[in-house]
Amino acid sequence: MATLTVHPDRLLPTEPGVREIARRLYGAVRDLPIISPHGHVDPKLLLDDQPFADPTSLFIQPDHYVTRLLHTAGIGLDRLGVAEGPLPEDRARQAWRLLCGHWHVLRGTPVRYWFDSELAEIFGVTERPGADNADALYDQIAEQLRRPSHRPRALLRRFGIEFLATTDDPADDLAAHEALRDDPDVSTTVAPTFRPDRYLEIGRPGWAETVKGLGDAGDYASYLDALAERRQYFIARGAVSADHGHADAGAEPLELHDAQRIYRAALAGAVTDAEALAFRRHMTYEMARMSCDDGLVMTLHPGVYRNHHPETLQRYGPDTGHDIPVAVEYTRALQPLLERFGNHPGLHLVLFTVDPDVYSREIAPLAGFYPSVYAGAPWWFLDNPSEIRRFQEAVTETAGFSRLSGFIDDTRAFCSIPARHDMSRRLDAGFLAGLVAAHRLDEDEALDTLTALVVDQPRKVFKL
Amino acid sequence: MATLTVHPDRLLPTEPGVREIARRLYGAVRDLPIISPHGHVDPKLLLDDQPFADPTSLFIQPDHYVTRLLHTAGIGLDRLGVAEGPLPEDRARQAWRLLCGHWHVLRGTPVRYWFDSELAEIFGVTERPGADNADALYDQIAEQLRRPSHRPRALLRRFGIEFLATTDDPADDLAAHEALRDDPDVSTTVAPTFRPDRYLEIGRPGWAETVKGLGDAGDYASYLDALAERRQYFIARGAVSADHGHADAGAEPLELHDAQRIYRAALAGAVTDAEALAFRRHMTYEMARMSCDDGLVMTLHPGVYRNHHPETLQRYGPDTGHDIPVAVEYTRALQPLLERFGNHPGLHLVLFTVDPDVYSREIAPLAGFYPSVYAGAPWWFLDNPSEIRRFQEAVTETAGFSRLSGFIDDTRAFCSIPARHDMSRRLDAGFLAGLVAAHRLDEDEALDTLTALVVDQPRKVFKL
Amino acid sequence: MATLTVHPDRLLPTEPGVREIARRLYGAVRDLPIISPHGHVDPKLLLDDQPFADPTSLFIQPDHYVTRLLHTAGIGLDRLGVAEGPLPEDRARQAWRLLCGHWHVLRGTPVRYWFDSELAEIFGVTERPGADNADALYDQIAEQLRRPSHRPRALLRRFGIEFLATTDDPADDLAAHEALRDDPDVSTTVAPTFRPDRYLEIGRPGWAETVKGLGDAGDYASYLDALAERRQYFIARGAVSADHGHADAGAEPLELHDAQRIYRAALAGAVTDAEALAFRRHMTYEMARMSCDDGLVMTLHPGVYRNHHPETLQRYGPDTGHDIPVAVEYTRALQPLLERFGNHPGLHLVLFTVDPDVYSREIAPLAGFYPSVYAGAPWWFLDNPSEIRRFQEAVTETAGFSRLSGFIDDTRAFCSIPARHDMSRRLDAGFLAGLVAAHRLDEDEALDTLTALVVDQPRKVFKL
Repeated sequence: MATLTVHPDRLLPTEPGVREIARRLYGAVRDLPIISPHGHVDPKLLLDDQPFADPTSLFIQPDHYVTRLLHTAGIGLDRLGVAEGPLPEDRARQAWRLLCGHWHVLRGTPVRYWFDSELAEIFGVTERPGADNADALYDQIAEQLRRPSHRPRALLRRFGIEFLATTDDPADDLAAHEALRDDPDVSTTVAPTFRPDRYLEIGRPGWAETVKGLGDAGDYASYLDALAERRQYFIARGAVSADHGHADAGAEPLELHDAQRIYRAALAGAVTDAEALAFRRHMTYEMARMSCDDGLVMTLHPGVYRNHHPETLQRYGPDTGHDIPVAVEYTRALQPLLERFGNHPGLHLVLFTVDPDVYSREIAPLAGFYPSVYAGAPWWFLDNPSEIRRFQEAVTETAGFSRLSGFIDDTRAFCSIPARHDMSRRLDAGFLAGLVAAHRLDEDEALDTLTALVVDQPRKVFKL
Repeated sequence: MATLTVHPDRLLPTEPGVREIARRLYGAVRDLPIISPHGHVDPKLLLDDQPFADPTSLFIQPDHYVTRLLHTAGIGLDRLGVAEGPLPEDRARQAWRLLCGHWHVLRGTPVRYWFDSELAEIFGVTERPGADNADALYDQIAEQLRRPSHRPRALLRRFGIEFLATTDDPADDLAAHEALRDDPDVSTTVAPTFRPDRYLEIGRPGWAETVKGLGDAGDYASYLDALAERRQYFIARGAVSADHGHADAGAEPLELHDAQRIYRAALAGAVTDAEALAFRRHMTYEMARMSCDDGLVMTLHPGVYRNHHPETLQRYGPDTGHDIPVAVEYTRALQPLLERFGNHPGLHLVLFTVDPDVYSREIAPLAGFYPSVYAGAPWWFLDNPSEIRRFQEAVTETAGFSRLSGFIDDTRAFCSIPARHDMSRRLDAGFLAGLVAAHRLDEDEALDTLTALVVDQPRKVFKL
Repeated sequence: MATLTVHPDRLLPTEPGVREIARRLYGAVRDLPIISPHGHVDPKLLLDDQPFADPTSLFIQPDHYVTRLLHTAGIGLDRLGVAEGPLPEDRARQAWRLLCGHWHVLRGTPVRYWFDSELAEIFGVTERPGADNADALYDQIAEQLRRPSHRPRALLRRFGIEFLATTDDPADDLAAHEALRDDPDVSTTVAPTFRPDRYLEIGRPGWAETVKGLGDAGDYASYLDALAERRQYFIARGAVSADHGHADAGAEPLELHDAQRIYRAALAGAVTDAEALAFRRHMTYEMARMSCDDGLVMTLHPGVYRNHHPETLQRYGPDTGHDIPVAVEYTRALQPLLERFGNHPGLHLVLFTVDPDVYSREIAPLAGFYPSVYAGAPWWFLDNPSEIRRFQEAVTETAGFSRLSGFIDDTRAFCSIPARHDMSRRLDAGFLAGLVAAHRLDEDEALDTLTALVVDQPRKVFKL
């Protein structure tokens, strides 16, 4: 049986001299608290604090990073319990066996890396998963999941998470967040995030019904008021940011009468695609305006073709592994917004991308001039060592380190949070060690920079 | 006189610890058989088994990698015998002198690397080519080319090529392939590849004449039947794949009556550019449908502006070094095809590109969800160490190693085949050694992965 | 107080074996003369040879690389004296304090690297700048600036600059260049560069007035003649190149009567945007034709959204840090030009970019076929170690080293010229050392290549 070990030097540079510097740097930040200003953990998980049902519901079912890789091997998502609640034990165990039996499929991916860390460090696993030991590992993990030490809140404490943002519908009452805030047993700040996409995309089927969730939105003016009020509601419950994930980064204002007219058409179900697009770009601009007023950090992550495989969407719902990136453009798209608000002291605009081409071409130059613009950490498909290295190089050489958002885990896989942050710290330490070894930075500066990336920068950028 | 040496550690990582791992990995696959599922060797070369005429006809005339680099130095393609048959000795020798005299022009390119390997390992050359020794090297190589040991079949055996795909016109009778298959002297499987581009691009001048080569194609239905029959003809003679190299990756079906109407217009020479484009994208979709039925692997490599310099095309024909890449898009272009066939067990769709931007942005995410999609190895302009490294990083971090096609040499330079595969093995060994050194993979896994890339993966992806 | 040291091995590879090779290579070119065929130094600086006013006017005010980074920290450009002449001492000192107090903002950028070199090597600074020592450093530098040794001409000699190109308006009388040429005290060749952008963009406000600067340009024919004459005027005063920086790389000829008609419309102030665009692309083609005739090297650097923040433009003018790159395309755009002139022996066309995606996809393949096309060195946002490495890899693997322009400093920061060229030499030495260490190149070839990049290649490409 092959062993599973997590080496203390993993991910650090391989050249011994550079590794030695990286070790020192990493050692100084390894145990700093985790700040997670963008993610997808369900607050009810922490509120209810129920034991995780089984390894499959913890590691496989909710994580499209895992299920899409198994899907490539011809495994139907139904066999993995995607879009289902907890499975009967035989099905849960069967799904786990599929994961372990296809362990080689994960080689080279960050998913494998996170799994190694999670299995070793949270569950004490010492064997590499495979077809042979799948059942034994299932039992070993399942047994621990029943212990108090492995309930969500206990893990939250153990992980050292100081701040955890969730992602929430503007119509959500945020009762879970309120309860967590008032619970003396929870010292982590669990903050909601305002995610208004579906309220802004007025051409979506059902939008006229959806928008009622905001309250009175019978005309354009009341719609704006309702959005502003919901933002205040979120802010009062700890929200620090609003998150926007449309197809493109367009942010161009309409004339008021055009916005009013299109809004009326949308309520009547008579909006054209072009009008809906123009309105959404207008509203992105308006959201920036509101951010200047109310201070919510604005995060933007366009450029994803959502639900590329309609049959999978129909059977399993969204976020099931078939969102595919497309090329994205920021320079022209954001010009109207930045012309108006780019120097506004109230605006923090964090630009994420899944198109790495824009790092050096557009994001770094924008973040290298506008005080409001920050380069969001590599995210989603790009949260892996080689793309993180590409990001570090592409952005810092043009914009320096002070324009980085700090790490974003963006995950719904609760147990992967520490592994993801740890990966980031190791890679930042390694990158900075390279600058020291090339005599471009003194080691005290590298250490200061690394600490800033881990804690100071996210606090500043997300106004914590 | 400078020496020419091929170092046993060439292309391996330079850090001694990583190099040591890479050496072990590479050593284990160095002598495995060569599988070449896509290339451009002329099967008649192997059928006739005539000695190569001279060094120029072997190394220069047929290889646009070489002639385009000499062309940059102001050397007219006429002086290199491009698009001519074997040259008179004085001209052949003169062309060879031009190559040797411009040896510095090749520095840093893979062409230089392949040459070094070929000259040293096949012809025992020990001096670096230059103006001074051009004639002596010409004589040394020419002398060997006359020996039985350096005829095509002898080299084929020596190279250890287990499977060699050629690229063929759908109207080809494949007589050479049949003869090679029946020849007990040839143990390599020499398989044809179905390359229907010019039959699908109905707006090309002369298409109405070209299409007659398929047999009865007097209306759309018989055209489809004829294509399907030619595919069967190819399959019966060993073909495993159909290769498509259009200007873009579009694959969107037309309504039947539109396809029929456009087809009729094309036969009448009255098709518009827009119709021809729509029809070609429709036919790419249809080719995928046929692949689901008959099992031919579908390889796609769009994004090349062919024959950028018309005067060169006119004087020397196509494939003479002035095809230039353009940006390419897969996510939207392939959506209709993948919506319909992406999960079909009969489809293997291998995506190649000469636009490296799409590796991490589009190809890896597509190959990281759809079980039918594979990431084709870096190809043409990208088959060099730095782009191969970029590919390895961009694709494997998102999609793992199991979605890679394995190496494709894509060459018409027969003697470069072993050097190209050897380069790939060295670079794969180096990349995997890096993962081992960073403690992301155990060495036994790296070895297993490397072996898969060299032999198992091409066999699986190309259904050998 | 932290020290400021410039290590002799800075920027060289970190692996000791490779570094050793790189040291040898770098050592051989470190002291070669500087050839600077493209930049923005004001020739009057050298003509007048007045002492620099103070550290702020030398290092901050004219350099948008520096001011944009400070601007990201919320520092208004007014506080930095942007677009002002020499400041009163209190304001100059205050701006310098802002720079030193935000020294951390520069970490990881080439600006920091250049500063380190300049401060240490030109001004003997031994302390890292910070809030605490800002005044002392100001005084230390200011004192030296008053010495004869630190006047512009003395520095020019000390920097070892053999050739220095400026960038000039076609209507400029080039009196400063003439005077410098005739001055026995100046041994550097200071050559003008023909930069006709604003004369070719006929839709610009005020163009009809601007064009009068060329002389008689009352119809299209006389306009062409006037441009050709101004080019001759520049050539007679030492110009070797014409520089073009439009929004895109389009170069497509119009029919003569269309060109004439559009030109008339422009003079009448009645040109449409589409006509102006077509005319500018036509004129890019015409400029190539003139280059074939008169031999001026043609440099092209499209793809920049100029003056992204209009308020900053209005207050401080252009070139104040908010030009932002956009995606660019060469393959299709340049096809008409290259179809006609690509093989012309009189044309040298140097392609620059701020969109690094085109290096391997378009520039290298174009430079790898057409003898007229050269790959311009990484420039502006890309003149940093990681992008230079990306350029080296992307271009040389496809096109070899002989297609590179050699380094271009493109700077208006006079004192940064030696630091920029030194950075380039170190990075080229490191890259070539890597090829030697991977046994792809012999060390004598690497040395020959490095020398070519530093002196021979710029001389050849820019016809010096």
